[in-house]
Amino acid sequence: MLRRHLLAALAALPLLAGPLAPQAAAQELIVEKKSFEIPRFVTQNGQPIPALRIGYQTAGTLNGAGDNAVLVAHFFSGNSHAFGRYTAGGPPGYWDAIIGPGRPIDTNKYFVIAADTPLNINTRDPNTITTGPATTNPETGRPWGMGFPVMTIRDFVETQKKLLDSLGVRRLALVAGASMGALQTIEWAAAYPDMVQRAMSVIGTDRVDGWIIGWLELWAAPIRLDPAWNAGRYHGSTTEPVAGLAESLKLVTLHARDHPWATALGTRFAEGQDPRRSVTERFAMEKWLDDAAMARARVSDANHFLYLIRANQLFLSGYDSPEAALSRSRAKWLIVPSVSDRVFPIEYNRRLAETLRQQGREVDVVDLEGPLGHLEGVVSMAKAGDAIRRLLAN
Amino acid sequence: MLRRHLLAALAALPLLAGPLAPQAAAQELIVEKKSFEIPRFVTQNGQPIPALRIGYQTAGTLNGAGDNAVLVAHFFSGNSHAFGRYTAGGPPGYWDAIIGPGRPIDTNKYFVIAADTPLNINTRDPNTITTGPATTNPETGRPWGMGFPVMTIRDFVETQKKLLDSLGVRRLALVAGASMGALQTIEWAAAYPDMVQRAMSVIGTDRVDGWIIGWLELWAAPIRLDPAWNAGRYHGSTTEPVAGLAESLKLVTLHARDHPWATALGTRFAEGQDPRRSVTERFAMEKWLDDAAMARARVSDANHFLYLIRANQLFLSGYDSPEAALSRSRAKWLIVPSVSDRVFPIEYNRRLAETLRQQGREVDVVDLEGPLGHLEGVVSMAKAGDAIRRLLAN
Repeated sequence: MLRRHLLAALAALPLLAGPLAPQAAAQELIVEKKSFEIPRFVTQNGQPIPALRIGYQTAGTLNGAGDNAVLVAHFFSGNSHAFGRYTAGGPPGYWDAIIGPGRPIDTNKYFVIAADTPLNINTRDPNTITTGPATTNPETGRPWGMGFPVMTIRDFVETQKKLLDSLGVRRLALVAGASMGALQTIEWAAAYPDMVQRAMSVIGTDRVDGWIIGWLELWAAPIRLDPAWNAGRYHGSTTEPVAGLAESLKLVTLHARDHPWATALGTRFAEGQDPRRSVTERFAMEKWLDDAAMARARVSDANHFLYLIRANQLFLSGYDSPEAALSRSRAKWLIVPSVSDRVFPIEYNRRLAETLRQQGREVDVVDLEGPLGHLEGVVSMAKAGDAIRRLLAN
Repeated sequence: MLRRHLLAALAALPLLAGPLAPQAAAQELIVEKKSFEIPRFVTQNGQPIPALRIGYQTAGTLNGAGDNAVLVAHFFSGNSHAFGRYTAGGPPGYWDAIIGPGRPIDTNKYFVIAADTPLNINTRDPNTITTGPATTNPETGRPWGMGFPVMTIRDFVETQKKLLDSLGVRRLALVAGASMGALQTIEWAAAYPDMVQRAMSVIGTDRVDGWIIGWLELWAAPIRLDPAWNAGRYHGSTTEPVAGLAESLKLVTLHARDHPWATALGTRFAEGQDPRRSVTERFAMEKWLDDAAMARARVSDANHFLYLIRANQLFLSGYDSPEAALSRSRAKWLIVPSVSDRVFPIEYNRRLAETLRQQGREVDVVDLEGPLGHLEGVVSMAKAGDAIRRLLAN
């Protein structure tokens, strides 16, 4: 779901086009990656984390009242690069189609902030700044490893709240996010109902139930099978569980897509291989998944992946029920599901919209359709542009 | 999908009931497990396998014309135990609700045969007889291991054809199967159109496309990550890749179910554990998946799993296209999809029915609905009973 991965997909196959195509240079929005440090963060479970750092980027200008801010939260394998380019001609952010000057989330009107979460998996990406098990614990001088405290989606919200406070933001005209970003959006609306005027949940879910908990565990399982994982004690060692992490990322990669996407590779054999000859010879699809996942694994961290899975499993765990959490919201909502989503199925989104309506919230829904399943919410958001404009005008 | 596993589920949770409940003793059908050997089998790819053995069971009596036979092919983790009990009071076969005296597939009228496939994963189950990588190669006196030839679903059909020939079967009143059994059913209808009068594809698919090839690869991947797999050279060693195989079976277990099934376990923590405290502490769902998968892994073989995956990936690979294969059929069809199937989605079943209709076949469709997703086709077939009676009366 990472932008890098989408670009790898583009390089490998003519499967994605349009939303990621370079825009005219005149429209280019240049953004700068910055760092924010919280001297002492205390998790939802009461554990302190000294010197918690996260990266962020902004566009536009905060008004005097501090109430024209928009917060964008990222998906599982993403980072703050939702909009703009770090260098002229560089790759755009994943939601660049809807964020920028004159776009649905108009940076001429709004002060738009996007932050990296703690536990971000892209630890070797120079444009990601995060804190987690791979980070050096300033109190010991060694990587935290499995001694890092469990964090939750609600904790992510608290890191963002402190960042917004530091920037002078008083009110959020909109909180928005795709997938894990939608989970952050919902936690935001429940935690700070007076601060969140509007909320946009894209390819999200109203709950992480036993079934989703199980799937998230299945994503994590390959890491633990890799002997190089070594019960999480590999930071600083020469061998890291890259093979296990790659298998985990392979699951994420395929789960986030729907079957029409696979038509281009189809049942072809990998070049020079014949799967009828030996079970070790590969179909083109197997080879593509191998290569895409390994490229992602090389810039990611396995323990961050395990911790991020747990954060998602604990979505809304601070509330008696999903309904109790949602009932705290005072926001106007836009729900954008993908009809063929295999990760957070459409019915979870339908229930989210229905619950909010029953609780008296204004709710608009825009269904995305396309071959990419879950990923439609990352790459096809231009289709929701009009609805986003309506939401912000409301 | 294995009966043993369903029973484990029953023991662990009150989630399954009805179809597997013991029937009145008066209705009990006792069956005997038998063995069939093919002295020299040559695979679709031209590789010889000496002394290929498969298990099977029958009920009812073949008529003089040899044309009242029904063949039942099993699913990925199943075996020939589709009907009857091996001992009085023992557990019934997985489709016992539809096969037996007076049932929709009436053993008073039909001679019903069910066979174990080659590559069957349940190598340590005393009621499974199969041939594959774990089998001793009579020419070397050692387990075949990765030197075993790749086999296909079409090869399974050929082993069954030889079994039927040996039993005097000339015509099949019906070929039926769930999941991988549906794949065998379709290969049968294409390979022997004059022999297959009727065909019932349950929770099947008209094709294994790139997306399904990818998912099957993801099922297989954990085995290769387990160092005990040792590139497939573990047969006869004291350590076997049970941990990797268990993770593979965990994927099969959850993928074959839909989310309403998970409601009973929900977001509860495993007894004595608190997932907020450490990423290694478990939710009840994670623990249930661990235990269910490990129980299955202990009676299964990892290389058989890998070979069986490849056999499924090569479904209909002997034909130019799925349509070309289906166009050979002269059978009357009953298609039984599960609406919430996550393995072979409903739209694959819709396309199967539509293609057959366009090719001039009579096609009836019965949708199964229920919390178990794919597994509904194994445990809820009583719901298709009337349609099966109609099919056989036609």
